[in-house]
Amino acid sequence: MRYRLYYWTGIQGRGEFVRLALEDAGADYVDVCRVQGDAAMQPFLAGKASGTRPFAPPFLKHGRRVLAQTAAILAYLAPRHGLVSTAESARWKAHQLQLTIADLVTEVHDTHHPIAASLYYEDQREAALARASAFRRERLPKYLDYGEQMLAAGGGRYLLGRPTYVDLSLFQLMAGLDYAFPRAMRRLRRRTVRLRALAARVAERPRIAAYLASPRRLAFNENGIFRHYPELDD
Amino acid sequence: MRYRLYYWTGIQGRGEFVRLALEDAGADYVDVCRVQGDAAMQPFLAGKASGTRPFAPPFLKHGRRVLAQTAAILAYLAPRHGLVSTAESARWKAHQLQLTIADLVTEVHDTHHPIAASLYYEDQREAALARASAFRRERLPKYLDYGEQMLAAGGGRYLLGRPTYVDLSLFQLMAGLDYAFPRAMRRLRRRTVRLRALAARVAERPRIAAYLASPRRLAFNENGIFRHYPELDD
Repeated sequence: MRYRLYYWTGIQGRGEFVRLALEDAGADYVDVCRVQGDAAMQPFLAGKASGTRPFAPPFLKHGRRVLAQTAAILAYLAPRHGLVSTAESARWKAHQLQLTIADLVTEVHDTHHPIAASLYYEDQREAALARASAFRRERLPKYLDYGEQMLAAGGGRYLLGRPTYVDLSLFQLMAGLDYAFPRAMRRLRRRTVRLRALAARVAERPRIAAYLASPRRLAFNENGIFRHYPELDD
Repeated sequence: MRYRLYYWTGIQGRGEFVRLALEDAGADYVDVCRVQGDAAMQPFLAGKASGTRPFAPPFLKHGRRVLAQTAAILAYLAPRHGLVSTAESARWKAHQLQLTIADLVTEVHDTHHPIAASLYYEDQREAALARASAFRRERLPKYLDYGEQMLAAGGGRYLLGRPTYVDLSLFQLMAGLDYAFPRAMRRLRRRTVRLRALAARVAERPRIAAYLASPRRLAFNENGIFRHYPELDD
């Protein structure tokens, strides 16, 4: 049964973590808003569609089920497509790691929007400078070190020893961080050797490589989560 | 097999969502740091204990498994203790709602720490005033309206029609919001009729009532996630 993914057009955003899994799986899916526009999400967000009402995009419709929350969508999809072992221990470990990635993504968003998502960046720039500075000094190295350590514990090549959806998300995370904070990421390059090798490995997966070369892969931009504002970098 | 919960002493924090589930289930658990001190978490956080390394507390040890991330811990515990139906659709819906609660909890934390968790509140007070104002005006009503609508959709008494762990978390959320933002919550009281009735219903559950009356239930305080700084309220 075809998956229907709902997410804002024009940005990669949180939807991209789901797209990478669907693409790598070769799953039959439609990126609904890219066909019908963002208004296609409104009946769901307003509680006027069938299925569980999502609080926010992305959400996935699969048959009668509507599932929101990026990490939950991935946990739902992955065992159906060999993107995680069906063993309970692997699924919990993967989900825990994905939720930690989700926490980091939220922190990245808040580097440019520390006061309110409803305000322009320019109207919260001073707070953004302070938050981004703390993020680059404290949080970013802590998360990256954790990623390196988890990769080492998994044998060095993949987080869980064999490829899973979490590796796809880690690729996206590294790509986004490199886009948003190129100087900070260069400073931390010796601490991210395994993460960089993993990201390169993921980018070479045939379906991921084909996706990245396709027009379906949007470029990062300053409407998304990973934004490049030079003043927020080292 | 006894559960071992690891979380900071001295605060309710994110650990409290897990405690409420364990208490309501009458589960056999030990709140490890309250016995051994916060240092008991260090081997796990440093990757020197067996099991998946957690990025941050809370985490739960159950046999050889170590599981972090509040929402994942709850999704793991709940079907084992009748705190959610074992039907797949109910578990996904509950998890999605719990992850939305987790997002709100992070936003509440950031009202008093919008710049960095490593700085004192007093050193980010100006940004906190701005963030808390936007939170109270935009985000809090949006989340509460969503909660009311989800309750209405579930029949009015429980989010999923019958009691689940998500209702326990919603009780905790309402208690924390009332503590942190009493004036804003009073302003919104007519929009939270179902949520308030649910919170009262949860507080009367025999094991929850016994827990709340016990010394195990710490008071909210200004080291936790829900902090009462009058200047951050209406």
